[in-house]
Amino acid sequence: MQRALELATHGPATGVNPQVGCVILNATGDTLAEGWHRGAGSRHAEVDALSQLAPGAAHGSTAVVTLEPCNHVGRTGPCSLALIEAGVARVVYSVTDPGEQSCGGAKQLRAAGIEVQDGLLTEEGEALLGDWLVAARLGRPFVTLKWASSLDGRAAAADGSSRWITGPDARLDVHRRRAACDTILVGTGTVLTDDPALTARDADGGLLARQPVPVVVGRREVPTSAALLNHPQQPLFFDGLDLPGLLANLHQRGLRSVFIEGGPTVASAFVAAGLVDEYLIYLAPTLIGGPGLALGDIGVASIGEQRRLSVQSLDRLGDDIRVVARPLTT
Amino acid sequence: MQRALELATHGPATGVNPQVGCVILNATGDTLAEGWHRGAGSRHAEVDALSQLAPGAAHGSTAVVTLEPCNHVGRTGPCSLALIEAGVARVVYSVTDPGEQSCGGAKQLRAAGIEVQDGLLTEEGEALLGDWLVAARLGRPFVTLKWASSLDGRAAAADGSSRWITGPDARLDVHRRRAACDTILVGTGTVLTDDPALTARDADGGLLARQPVPVVVGRREVPTSAALLNHPQQPLFFDGLDLPGLLANLHQRGLRSVFIEGGPTVASAFVAAGLVDEYLIYLAPTLIGGPGLALGDIGVASIGEQRRLSVQSLDRLGDDIRVVARPLTT
Ligand SMILES: NC(=O)c1ccc[n+]([C@@H]2O[C@H](COP(=O)([O-])OP(=O)(O)OC[C@H]3O[C@@H](n4cnc5c(N)ncnc54)[C@H](OP(=O)(O)O)[C@@H]3O)[C@@H](O)[C@H]2O)c1
Ligand SMILES: NC(=O)c1ccc[n+]([C@@H]2O[C@H](COP(=O)([O-])OP(=O)(O)OC[C@H]3O[C@@H](n4cnc5c(N)ncnc54)[C@H](OP(=O)(O)O)[C@@H]3O)[C@@H](O)[C@H]2O)c1
Repeated sequence: MQRALELATHGPATGVNPQVGCVILNATGDTLAEGWHRGAGSRHAEVDALSQLAPGAAHGSTAVVTLEPCNHVGRTGPCSLALIEAGVARVVYSVTDPGEQSCGGAKQLRAAGIEVQDGLLTEEGEALLGDWLVAARLGRPFVTLKWASSLDGRAAAADGSSRWITGPDARLDVHRRRAACDTILVGTGTVLTDDPALTARDADGGLLARQPVPVVVGRREVPTSAALLNHPQQPLFFDGLDLPGLLANLHQRGLRSVFIEGGPTVASAFVAAGLVDEYLIYLAPTLIGGPGLALGDIGVASIGEQRRLSVQSLDRLGDDIRVVARPLTT
Repeated sequence: MQRALELATHGPATGVNPQVGCVILNATGDTLAEGWHRGAGSRHAEVDALSQLAPGAAHGSTAVVTLEPCNHVGRTGPCSLALIEAGVARVVYSVTDPGEQSCGGAKQLRAAGIEVQDGLLTEEGEALLGDWLVAARLGRPFVTLKWASSLDGRAAAADGSSRWITGPDARLDVHRRRAACDTILVGTGTVLTDDPALTARDADGGLLARQPVPVVVGRREVPTSAALLNHPQQPLFFDGLDLPGLLANLHQRGLRSVFIEGGPTVASAFVAAGLVDEYLIYLAPTLIGGPGLALGDIGVASIGEQRRLSVQSLDRLGDDIRVVARPLTT
């Protein structure tokens, strides 16, 4: 399995499909063939390994795979069937396939009389799959909502001015976390008011190596002079009327995580829809008062409907406070 | 001085006047007399000590006092004059008198040719004077503003319901801090909506030994059935139109600290007036959204006018977060 995990890393690190590795062993434990998944549309790891063997050579062998063999007929045909047809006697895998269409491979294999063992090095297997696994389990990208506010929950003063509420340490932290996400999402309101570049930058303003895809939601037109049109990644535009549909669209494009940077209207819409997996809140030691709220109405009429969170971490970043929280699941 | 500090503690621990102690020593360092201040209207420590000596006995002696001898003609006559008239040769004191009317004693003594030394065991002297000193330096009571809100700055849901936003640890902490204050202040809005008892209680709901005086601000009538009318301390009522005047009134009554418990309207008025010395903010891990803000308008039009604070402490109390902050003085 260790070797299968190693092989998996040969595949592309981001994209629609997961990194998967496979080793075929004979009855005495010698390696017959190795394979890995090379990305969307190409052969899955199991088929890649089997393809290196002469017909019949895999008969009675053991296939060690990092992810449960898939069971759906996609562009590549189900791996479970390929393993059955090759006469494999035993399949060992690390992580169960969470996909709605692709799961059920193990059941299929067992039905064909193949010995199946799962849960080997699961922790390493899950770590390798990372965002792909989280997103696959959710059936959509992982959504982080970030905002920066005063201690009284304001993101802007009465006249709309909002720059430099938080200090340099918090801002650098935001850029690092942006860079770790596949997309960065804002509403047209923020684009029209702030004209943000939506790039992930270092302390000197230089572009970080990895840049999230900018996603703009809203029906209003974005001016051709908008800074985000010069983003290294091609921006995506949605009207924002169907947020689950929007996330499904991003997921299909192989985008595994969304970093929502505001503004308040879009943020509130995602919270109200129950589509936020993680809150990243920067609280500056300041009071602003007035109408410039970080979060608007989220559909809570009475205190019993409040959206309880669980705090994952609480830290001081320079003068500011960072709270990372997730919805409390009861 | 150590002995003078000890003597001071014989006086009453709270009230309009400070705890002060005094020792009179002869030229060889033997104690001639000791005295302390017994509370409002009674003899000051220096006069108390001198009164125990025969006329002329204090000639050439050294007076050791925990607080700079006062210089104003109050109900008791200035201590500086008493020391001069007794023929004291040297005065040693710990803490400089911060009072607007009472200060200047040292100058007066020096002008009369008496040797004056200050700053002896100042830390201990200040600790002993505690709230009295802080309030005397401010010329008004020390004001703490407390609120409990969600992470998005809401203290109540849209329908006004607000009970149990924070958990038991935070609530117990509030009661302990209430008990440490001389007064607890709320607006008529809170009284009419919540009918709070305004007592300081332990975890079982039992009354703590020390109870702050309830202060209600607003022009509206408080119903005769209001719970706070059963408070162990007689409540005080103000119309709230003159907040500095209100604080001066409390100060004159010997009330050294105010614990503002809300609601949002009164809290915002104190913030806008620049009359808050300490913020005590409990943030519950929850989101509420909507109109139930913990703080309303505080007169900040543009981001440059925001009220910057400095965070004194950041702690987790059960599931909640406690932030203690003070206005940033630049
Ligand atoms: N401190 C911070 O962390 C932070 C971050 C970002 C922005 N801001 C501030 O926020 C302000 C902008 O506020 P904003 O609320 O107008 O910005 P916004 O949330 O970025 O944009 C609001 C717009 O998003 C569109 N939208 C798309 N999907 C939506 C949905 N499902 N529900 C509702 N609206 C949807 C609507 O535009 P259409 O009418 O075009 O459909 C709506 O008017 C600026 O002052 C900015 O400085 C602060
Ligand atoms: N979560 C918390 O920490 C917390 C704490 C307390 C209250 N609350 C909630 O707050 C809500 C009550 O809100 P509220 O804002 O009406 O209560 P409030 O601030 O207690 O009372 C407001 C009233 O105070 C009077 N007032 C006195 N001096 C004033 C001044 N200088 N400026 C303005 N008003 C002054 C006015 O009453 P007159 O018209 O009588 O003059 C005003 O209407 C309740 O729902 C309660 O549950 C929450």
